[in-house]
Amino acid sequence: MVGRFIVFEGVEGCGKTSQMQLCAEWLQSLGVSVVLTREPGGTELGLDLRRLLLQKEEDKPIAEVTELLLYAADRSQHVAQELKPQLAQGKYILCDRYVDSTIAYQGYGRGLDMDLIHQLNYIATGGLTSDITIWLDVDVEVGLTRKRGENVGLDRIEQEAIAFHRRVQQGYADLAKSSPSRIFSVDGSSSKEIVHKKIQEILSVHLQELQ
Amino acid sequence: MVGRFIVFEGVEGCGKTSQMQLCAEWLQSLGVSVVLTREPGGTELGLDLRRLLLQKEEDKPIAEVTELLLYAADRSQHVAQELKPQLAQGKYILCDRYVDSTIAYQGYGRGLDMDLIHQLNYIATGGLTSDITIWLDVDVEVGLTRKRGENVGLDRIEQEAIAFHRRVQQGYADLAKSSPSRIFSVDGSSSKEIVHKKIQEILSVHLQELQ
Repeated sequence: MVGRFIVFEGVEGCGKTSQMQLCAEWLQSLGVSVVLTREPGGTELGLDLRRLLLQKEEDKPIAEVTELLLYAADRSQHVAQELKPQLAQGKYILCDRYVDSTIAYQGYGRGLDMDLIHQLNYIATGGLTSDITIWLDVDVEVGLTRKRGENVGLDRIEQEAIAFHRRVQQGYADLAKSSPSRIFSVDGSSSKEIVHKKIQEILSVHLQELQ
Repeated sequence: MVGRFIVFEGVEGCGKTSQMQLCAEWLQSLGVSVVLTREPGGTELGLDLRRLLLQKEEDKPIAEVTELLLYAADRSQHVAQELKPQLAQGKYILCDRYVDSTIAYQGYGRGLDMDLIHQLNYIATGGLTSDITIWLDVDVEVGLTRKRGENVGLDRIEQEAIAFHRRVQQGYADLAKSSPSRIFSVDGSSSKEIVHKKIQEILSVHLQELQ
């Protein structure tokens, strides 16, 4: 029994959370056993690391290489403790962010060493890749406005300049172009219902057991 | 102005803490500006990571690769935030454990992938090596008995079997043999005063400015 590993990617406010929820409900209605998880923070250790990574502490900034190593540690623990065991049990994993987030945010966004990012992604995952990655493509301003509308304080990552988010967006676009059989772009600016229908279509076409 | 980077290594109970203190007092008496630090836990972020690494949690064990990545994250932050800036200010850094601890404990002790350890050590340090590493060589049982005599609870690392500590000891022996111009072994079973004298001699011979 081998499960399926489905990742949701996109800039802040792209609608990942709602779409993962709708997708989980739909899969469950088909009798599939679903696990919802995320990076960073998909394990108890990861929650501690997520807190360290996202909290705003201007007086003690995290060094760039340290940031990459902490994301890799979170991912390594997530792969070992959750992803591999759940897949082995035949579960469908819906995961909020995975290796492409690191490439888009730290690589394209911050301009950190791309070779190092690929090296650490491989160390952390041992080569585990998603079956399908859904990239919810929304305009950066639309996403950030949605996020602000939620009336929660913006965290360290979200406060970065718009220019940063544009580079992240470009990262996703390049990734989608270079991995067309794994990454599927969905226009995230449509209504929730339309986006959800599009995701259903993609999964139904590419995961034969859902047909 | 370039400082000096002096590392103290050895198994549990080898006397690092006392000897670092004596060495700091001696160097200060010579007018040298000294910084005492350690790994893991040489920065505020590192203290959080040290707590995560050392606390005993049998129900949620840390995966081996995660452990290596967390030590590397601690080290990377320590190098960027403390070691490089302090060395640039001409300070003498006395550091409790550095890259050789990872080779000895995780590599020899736990048998983790040595190539991965070297890879992560390099990523974390950017190639920064000690000027001199003092290896306090004591018999494993002597060290652990000393440690127990202190009447503090043994942490996760210390509770590992004696066999583990023997492998760590072998690691230090191999490292000392392969880096004779950087790693100096000192018999740590002698009295505090004799060990301290021996360390004074080594530093005086190899750091010309102390002569």
